[in-house]
Amino acid sequence: MSSQHSYTNVDKRLVKSYFDSKIYIMTETAEIMKVNPDIQKERDAATIDMEELAVIIYGKEQLSKKRKLEDAVFNDPDYKCVPSAFLSREEEYEEGLRKSSLAVLKQSKLSDLIEDHKDIMAYNSNVSSINVLFDLNYGMFATTVLGQGTTEQQAKWLIPSLSHEIIGTYAQTEMGHGTFLRGLETTAHYDPNTQEFILNSPTISSIKWWPGALGKTSTHAVVLAQLYTLGKCHGIHPFVVQLRSLDDHKPLRGITVGDIGPKMGFGPNDNGYLKLHKHRIPRTNMLMKYSQVSPDGTYTKPPRSTLTYGTMTFVRVLIVHGSAIALAKASTIAIRYSAVRRQSELRPGEPEPQILSYPTQQHKLFPLLATAYAFHFVQLAMMKIYTDVNDQINNSNFSRIQELHALSSGLKAFTSWVTNAGLEVCRMSCGGHGYSQASGFPRLYADFTPSCTYEGENTVLMLQSARYLVKCVRDARSGKTLPGTVSYLSEDVSAVHSGGSSGRDLSNLDFLISLYKQRASNQVHFASDKVDRGISAGMDLVGALNSASVHLVSAAKAHSHYFIAKTFVESLKLLKASSELQNVLHQLASVYVFEGIAQSSGDFIEDYILSGSEAKTIRQLAVDLLPLIRVNAVSLVDAFSFRDEVLQSVLGRYDGNVYENLFKWAQNSPLNKTDVHPSYHKYLGPLLKRNQSKL
Amino acid sequence: MSSQHSYTNVDKRLVKSYFDSKIYIMTETAEIMKVNPDIQKERDAATIDMEELAVIIYGKEQLSKKRKLEDAVFNDPDYKCVPSAFLSREEEYEEGLRKSSLAVLKQSKLSDLIEDHKDIMAYNSNVSSINVLFDLNYGMFATTVLGQGTTEQQAKWLIPSLSHEIIGTYAQTEMGHGTFLRGLETTAHYDPNTQEFILNSPTISSIKWWPGALGKTSTHAVVLAQLYTLGKCHGIHPFVVQLRSLDDHKPLRGITVGDIGPKMGFGPNDNGYLKLHKHRIPRTNMLMKYSQVSPDGTYTKPPRSTLTYGTMTFVRVLIVHGSAIALAKASTIAIRYSAVRRQSELRPGEPEPQILSYPTQQHKLFPLLATAYAFHFVQLAMMKIYTDVNDQINNSNFSRIQELHALSSGLKAFTSWVTNAGLEVCRMSCGGHGYSQASGFPRLYADFTPSCTYEGENTVLMLQSARYLVKCVRDARSGKTLPGTVSYLSEDVSAVHSGGSSGRDLSNLDFLISLYKQRASNQVHFASDKVDRGISAGMDLVGALNSASVHLVSAAKAHSHYFIAKTFVESLKLLKASSELQNVLHQLASVYVFEGIAQSSGDFIEDYILSGSEAKTIRQLAVDLLPLIRVNAVSLVDAFSFRDEVLQSVLGRYDGNVYENLFKWAQNSPLNKTDVHPSYHKYLGPLLKRNQSKL
Repeated sequence: MSSQHSYTNVDKRLVKSYFDSKIYIMTETAEIMKVNPDIQKERDAATIDMEELAVIIYGKEQLSKKRKLEDAVFNDPDYKCVPSAFLSREEEYEEGLRKSSLAVLKQSKLSDLIEDHKDIMAYNSNVSSINVLFDLNYGMFATTVLGQGTTEQQAKWLIPSLSHEIIGTYAQTEMGHGTFLRGLETTAHYDPNTQEFILNSPTISSIKWWPGALGKTSTHAVVLAQLYTLGKCHGIHPFVVQLRSLDDHKPLRGITVGDIGPKMGFGPNDNGYLKLHKHRIPRTNMLMKYSQVSPDGTYTKPPRSTLTYGTMTFVRVLIVHGSAIALAKASTIAIRYSAVRRQSELRPGEPEPQILSYPTQQHKLFPLLATAYAFHFVQLAMMKIYTDVNDQINNSNFSRIQELHALSSGLKAFTSWVTNAGLEVCRMSCGGHGYSQASGFPRLYADFTPSCTYEGENTVLMLQSARYLVKCVRDARSGKTLPGTVSYLSEDVSAVHSGGSSGRDLSNLDFLISLYKQRASNQVHFASDKVDRGISAGMDLVGALNSASVHLVSAAKAHSHYFIAKTFVESLKLLKASSELQNVLHQLASVYVFEGIAQSSGDFIEDYILSGSEAKTIRQLAVDLLPLIRVNAVSLVDAFSFRDEVLQSVLGRYDGNVYENLFKWAQNSPLNKTDVHPSYHKYLGPLLKRNQSKL
Repeated sequence: MSSQHSYTNVDKRLVKSYFDSKIYIMTETAEIMKVNPDIQKERDAATIDMEELAVIIYGKEQLSKKRKLEDAVFNDPDYKCVPSAFLSREEEYEEGLRKSSLAVLKQSKLSDLIEDHKDIMAYNSNVSSINVLFDLNYGMFATTVLGQGTTEQQAKWLIPSLSHEIIGTYAQTEMGHGTFLRGLETTAHYDPNTQEFILNSPTISSIKWWPGALGKTSTHAVVLAQLYTLGKCHGIHPFVVQLRSLDDHKPLRGITVGDIGPKMGFGPNDNGYLKLHKHRIPRTNMLMKYSQVSPDGTYTKPPRSTLTYGTMTFVRVLIVHGSAIALAKASTIAIRYSAVRRQSELRPGEPEPQILSYPTQQHKLFPLLATAYAFHFVQLAMMKIYTDVNDQINNSNFSRIQELHALSSGLKAFTSWVTNAGLEVCRMSCGGHGYSQASGFPRLYADFTPSCTYEGENTVLMLQSARYLVKCVRDARSGKTLPGTVSYLSEDVSAVHSGGSSGRDLSNLDFLISLYKQRASNQVHFASDKVDRGISAGMDLVGALNSASVHLVSAAKAHSHYFIAKTFVESLKLLKASSELQNVLHQLASVYVFEGIAQSSGDFIEDYILSGSEAKTIRQLAVDLLPLIRVNAVSLVDAFSFRDEVLQSVLGRYDGNVYENLFKWAQNSPLNKTDVHPSYHKYLGPLLKRNQSKL
């Protein structure tokens, strides 16, 4: 216990000093703990002002708020516990429940600091890096009741859920159906005699599976089910179902709930199952703002079916943001560690270089660092488009819904895929120690990777995005005007560029963005032509789309890639920053744009957008930039402003004191509670001694 | 407990029926459990004979042996336990120790079946998918004593370790140094007065870190340390160090050992640390077969320094094999699940298609299936080269050592990288359920991914391989003859092919392999020229190599890729197989070769090996093959012959009964022991009721 105690104490002090950028930190034994000199040298040599950049990333007020919300959680000893890597699954759940409950009580006393829902979410994300067990209560249960319930229904469930008299979740996904909603099998049959719905899980594959906090925590759920009334099915509708008694938390009759078992990550969350057996709920438990079933069973359908697009799109924008954050965290850990890790002797007698100085290490990490910045600017732009379109919708202008849906789908898939692979590149760039839970990487990856699957499986989303792009090509051909992000599809770009022609400035980002545009346009038209050929050959549209689906995915990727590169470059033009910071951010944008071409050079050369030698030149331009970026690499990750408690990584510590703390961290291992593990006496001792006694 | 009991019982019966390929399996309640009809249909429609292919993969005798060794473990109730995903780390370790000890006792009674070291390893790999805690005792401790110890030293430690009187491990890696051996900091100072070595860990970064089974299990270790005698350092040498008392297992004086804490995977293994403080061992504990320190401290150096290459190379060949196996397992799970998973309605009213029928799913999985086969044939070829070169070495012919080292380094890195990414593609192709531990994927990935880092970090290995290739280019220019796998570097391939010229058969694999050759040759020469230009510009060789390192890695990748594609295609020509099987394997080789070009098309077009339109054609050829491969996809993975107990995947079950068994599996979750989790009474209940009472 004493070593664990000292561990958290050291961290607390680090935290205090974090934003002061002091070089010396006092330890509890009054021993002076020096910031690792290698990492200090990096900070001293930086040409940019880390704080200026942090303000640009977060905004001045938000940065200040962020820091206050962090102080509120990380300086509060009640939240301290042993690093979660050392907990069993049950302990993780229990600890999660403790913190979630604690957070509710604490927040009620922090009214100065916590002003709105966003603040609660930010506070909670400090309490637990994954999510607090009640997040779905606010984020999905309450939101759905608010959005789809009548005023009476809101009174009945909304306030109780927000005041934690009940805990709700959102039970949509079933064992057999996820992304394809229409396939859900849970049924809700209306019985006019009792004015009740009878809920059933008619097959094994219809069991609700995965919803967060469903297994052991939630007392209520919004359950999505196929509505049957008067002998007819009216499709998926939401019903409020009480799962557990409010007296003793026992599951109600007709309800079987439980935990679905351990996952790759998300240990503290009791993702659950729900099996319904002839479970009756009052008619008024169907959320009836848009659709209604009257007492006699008459069904009234909703005015529009696209109204739920909004939430889906919003969540996808959040995932783009989540990708930016995850990649920023991974870059921070890997780049800081690469600054303190020295390895190999280039020339006999010379000191071992920092691994950050190796071109191969730079080539792994700096394009990903640039990508983290790219995604940051993209999530800002995406959120702005979302807000704009939402405003239009509120003014009954629905013209950009499809465009927004296609863009957010493509960007969610693109950014989460890139981030997913990038996190692992960062982890492996740290050598063996990246594999230890002490690095923070295994958990970061395990908790991020579901982003590729939930809220729309990535390939499915790319196909949805692509189908819209194909439709745009047709619209353009029939003379319609295409909206903002897809208007380029009506331009004739084929004649604009021709690979290898003279006088092309390959380091000019605006010029290169026009090549991304040309590539995207080519890919979309190629896939679209493929669909058309399918139809000419006698396929129906569905068949033609299906047979072209590999190409459609490529087209949607190229479209997303173009949007991201363009947004990054354009965002920088609008920034108010010192000229040196502008200069450094321009280096990052350049490496992003160059590497994007280098890694997909086939796409560009196949269509003669670039010549082979031009592609080689651009690849070399990327490599040449790496040593320039190296100068500010540590400051560029420091500006993300992740506290040590957020990174939860011994390798990524702000002070760079990695090795001492790896050793301290390991002392927490349950296997180290005793010098001789108890299992020795059961198995190993008898085995060793059996042979000894024989001799 | 009863559900867990039924789970293992069902598995036992499945196992029995596995190789009989019966359609009906009896459950314990005499209920008839049908093989999922969707997967049965796949097997019925296959055009190849699964058993014929299994024999080709393993060899007739080895396949029979493999099955017997599996029966010996999987039909033995003593090894049964709850799936490890439900265990805490401590329970995992204890269970591992139990099984490891049990395996020793069992093996001694199976002398008919277990004939050699290979059989022990195979038996052990069935006992535990990762490794048995004593594997390093045999594989590294005993091997090192045998290879580097004198006859007396062998007598002292070899027999005791093989008869489990002592358990040894191999302590090389330190906190601060892994791949770069010369950087190790542990010291062994010789004291002629007492004829002892004094071992020390002089810095924190010198603490031994990572060695398997070091933390709690091993009684002895071979410790690698810098040897100092008579005031001079003679570099790294191996010393046998007793760590723990054989009476009570307590660490000896001067020895601090412990567990390094949880990792991403390898839960049961107590990867450990070792800190040495003025720890004295007799002079005779230095392994002295090649180097010696005499009683007065005189040092005698070894005759050759390359003698240890053999073991390193052998282990890398094993990792190539491990890559093939891991990718085969992942393909098996993903393809079987894709045959039973139905999703989305293409056209209203039609049944939801098996996801295996979607082109995008095929495009994810079939190239990886083909890669698993490619890597299988490559590991066979690589093992043959290893054996040949070893024979030559035993005849004092050292001419191919460097070639072997470069080839095995490149292939280890290439195959483990591809597999690492491929495992995650397979997992994510299974949608949300891939994220559950029930899928087997999280563990498969977590246990495989260190292959990219250990036994030589992949980027470092690629650079080593590339440096040899650059040296070959120089040798060729100076008129030397290049050995087998690199002889093409002396051919003038630039004139052979020119992209877009007429009459080229783009579906001819021999022709395409010649393009891979040209690409590899171009990349190696390009990197080599880059090094030469560096030298011309005044750099030393080290500096020039370092500045060209990004290109060197690309060159080594292209070289490895060429070797793999060529080996796959050539291996098939030598196979004795039915014409239909030949035909199907040719499809796999084709998709491997086509996709390899499609995914790196830039490499081929930049250098005019292919024209842009040829690259497009080849990409389309790959897509066109997918529906043909689909016919036999399930049989192609069945032939890998992984039993359900080996895959440990509910999604990859041979019988395809996924959903019923997902539900059964989840019942094991510790959170499901009670309907109401105990933590409810501590945290959630008081929170909910606090608010209720206020109302």
